[in-house]
Amino acid sequence: MSRGVITFTSDFGTKEYYVGAVKGSVLSVNPDARIVDLSHDIPSHDLLGAAFTVLGSYGLYPPGTVHLIIVDPGVGSKRRGLLVATEKYLFVAPDNGVLSLVYQREDIRQVVSIEAEHYFRQPVAPTFHGRDIFGPVAGYLSRGIEASKFGPPITDYVKLTLPDVKEVGAGVLEGFVLHVDKFGNIITSIREEDIAAKMGQGARPRKFVINDQEITKHVSYYSEGDAVKAFSLIGSSGFFEIASLKKSAARVLEVKRGMKVTAEFQA
Amino acid sequence: MSRGVITFTSDFGTKEYYVGAVKGSVLSVNPDARIVDLSHDIPSHDLLGAAFTVLGSYGLYPPGTVHLIIVDPGVGSKRRGLLVATEKYLFVAPDNGVLSLVYQREDIRQVVSIEAEHYFRQPVAPTFHGRDIFGPVAGYLSRGIEASKFGPPITDYVKLTLPDVKEVGAGVLEGFVLHVDKFGNIITSIREEDIAAKMGQGARPRKFVINDQEITKHVSYYSEGDAVKAFSLIGSSGFFEIASLKKSAARVLEVKRGMKVTAEFQA
Amino acid sequence: MSRGVITFTSDFGTKEYYVGAVKGSVLSVNPDARIVDLSHDIPSHDLLGAAFTVLGSYGLYPPGTVHLIIVDPGVGSKRRGLLVATEKYLFVAPDNGVLSLVYQREDIRQVVSIEAEHYFRQPVAPTFHGRDIFGPVAGYLSRGIEASKFGPPITDYVKLTLPDVKEVGAGVLEGFVLHVDKFGNIITSIREEDIAAKMGQGARPRKFVINDQEITKHVSYYSEGDAVKAFSLIGSSGFFEIASLKKSAARVLEVKRGMKVTAEFQA
Repeated sequence: MSRGVITFTSDFGTKEYYVGAVKGSVLSVNPDARIVDLSHDIPSHDLLGAAFTVLGSYGLYPPGTVHLIIVDPGVGSKRRGLLVATEKYLFVAPDNGVLSLVYQREDIRQVVSIEAEHYFRQPVAPTFHGRDIFGPVAGYLSRGIEASKFGPPITDYVKLTLPDVKEVGAGVLEGFVLHVDKFGNIITSIREEDIAAKMGQGARPRKFVINDQEITKHVSYYSEGDAVKAFSLIGSSGFFEIASLKKSAARVLEVKRGMKVTAEFQA
Repeated sequence: MSRGVITFTSDFGTKEYYVGAVKGSVLSVNPDARIVDLSHDIPSHDLLGAAFTVLGSYGLYPPGTVHLIIVDPGVGSKRRGLLVATEKYLFVAPDNGVLSLVYQREDIRQVVSIEAEHYFRQPVAPTFHGRDIFGPVAGYLSRGIEASKFGPPITDYVKLTLPDVKEVGAGVLEGFVLHVDKFGNIITSIREEDIAAKMGQGARPRKFVINDQEITKHVSYYSEGDAVKAFSLIGSSGFFEIASLKKSAARVLEVKRGMKVTAEFQA
Repeated sequence: MSRGVITFTSDFGTKEYYVGAVKGSVLSVNPDARIVDLSHDIPSHDLLGAAFTVLGSYGLYPPGTVHLIIVDPGVGSKRRGLLVATEKYLFVAPDNGVLSLVYQREDIRQVVSIEAEHYFRQPVAPTFHGRDIFGPVAGYLSRGIEASKFGPPITDYVKLTLPDVKEVGAGVLEGFVLHVDKFGNIITSIREEDIAAKMGQGARPRKFVINDQEITKHVSYYSEGDAVKAFSLIGSSGFFEIASLKKSAARVLEVKRGMKVTAEFQA
């Protein structure tokens, strides 16, 4: 089924030994695992940043893939470790909300609190559960060990409190800035399918308002967006985004993650 | 033959989800593919930089390797996608000249315009052909699907206009600065084999002139080059380069990519 | 046994073609090799930094793994290439001390000077032994070729002169700063097992002295360390380290690699 594919996302950076140690702990359990690096350059402790990175890629992988996500500001404290099963995938991560966007989008089959210590590397260092708990668990999962073997099912796992997209008027949606990418593109929490669900397939944005500025041009791809300060488009992960051609829209509009965004649509 | 090796070069950086998404789109088509990261830190939209990186590594790979190169400033516009077959390799890239140095060095067997939409991920986002077109095509190629299945053969593919190395006098060659690497080494477009072809195997450089400065010392490896401001050597990809010991030659000599270089040789 | 796992550590960075070229040279010899990137962001020519990165990860890998380490300031000169066999692993690296921490910790079975040129890629560029010698040798090793085939055994390989941890008084150990990590944590050369060996399992640090400053709080994990300027803990690779909560301890205490550290313990 999975053929041993394990994706690996972290905030470890690539200058220290952490990434190499976790990969070793996976391979020592399953030498046939195929580890695929997604990103190790998530900003330190940035749970929402990691959630967004995972959201943009996890669904592309073949069924049975194990997704290992280690962004773990609470390592060593009593926060739990999680194993989350959806129809197609298994996720291994600390219970700190880093999987919140997966919970929103997927039908969650099973969430297990990782407690079965015989699957851990011993002794467990209180500063490095990635190597001693999450890595080995991902390795065992990729060998086909059942999720339920790793601990009891739970339902009270942590979710980041992210504001829902709300309809605040006729054809007007309110969301927030989910992410600013390295090019300065502003990814909003409003998705193409929110519009389609509420206003029909053909609905098109009339304007976006963000930080008291109006964006009224909507395009299909970046290079169409010349001659205006900023424009909207549907980004590759399905969210509306605000961009500026060859400039950082976030800087041009002085926008930061978390700010409110409203969008007006016409059918 | 290829055993599913796919190299992957891009300007996506490692902070966003793009690299992980493309890898997923490859693996969803061929879960047994083995993706090898070359570099994702090509400067944004730097076609010649990507061309040079690919040039330095593609020829080392086993026959049958698929080389996937995504540096794509024109994504979403009408630029074509290409599949290029040489005797040993298959290249998948946008038709924007990023393969120019491959065209120079290889006997090109077949160039196909990628048009067969049933091999694409649907729907195709106009901003992310890497994920929706190039990744899946690389995956299918690695499964052994024939190049001709992906679209019609073409001959008018885009080449960067790079000046040829010219003989401008007896034993004098003129080229240009092809690349400045992260150490500040200046890689010229003049290759060891240009000299051998024109002046015989034993020919040695007498001097290089670049930005009105003469470089008269030629060495075999970097640490020989002390006691002079700058020296020439044959770099590991076969081009003459100008370097300074423990300093950036590009800064010392105020040299930028594209500048003219002349070299005088003696048999 | 090894199933072809080859870890790869270098100071090549990820902007140039060097990493991709070495991976190709490995795969051209063994197309089934599975190359695992540890880090390519070792600071240029930093032998001790590379040694520390390798130390933190090599021991996690399955038996038979080949560890390829290329940090090679002397490339092209007469420094030898090494193949080092321990009970579980094979190491391939230049003979410049980069394996010193492995020598300290492992029972070394065999050290071979790499000299058998028929295993090299030809011609060997004097500036890139990683591609032309070390990569291919790692590839052949992963195919099961015996270490002794690559050259004669030697015993006079290079070791970095690292001060031993010394007992300088009753319950007082003296070591040095081995590494400062990207968070500014100060990793000392004093290991948990040094204490256990000398003072019994239950021994706990009473204080550390570094750069004339005393650190008297000892914790189990980082987030316990609030309310003090700096604290000690046992890091994930078994060394005592000095950290500051959410700050760089190295900056707070003005500490650099190589500085003396003393530690007082009580049984």
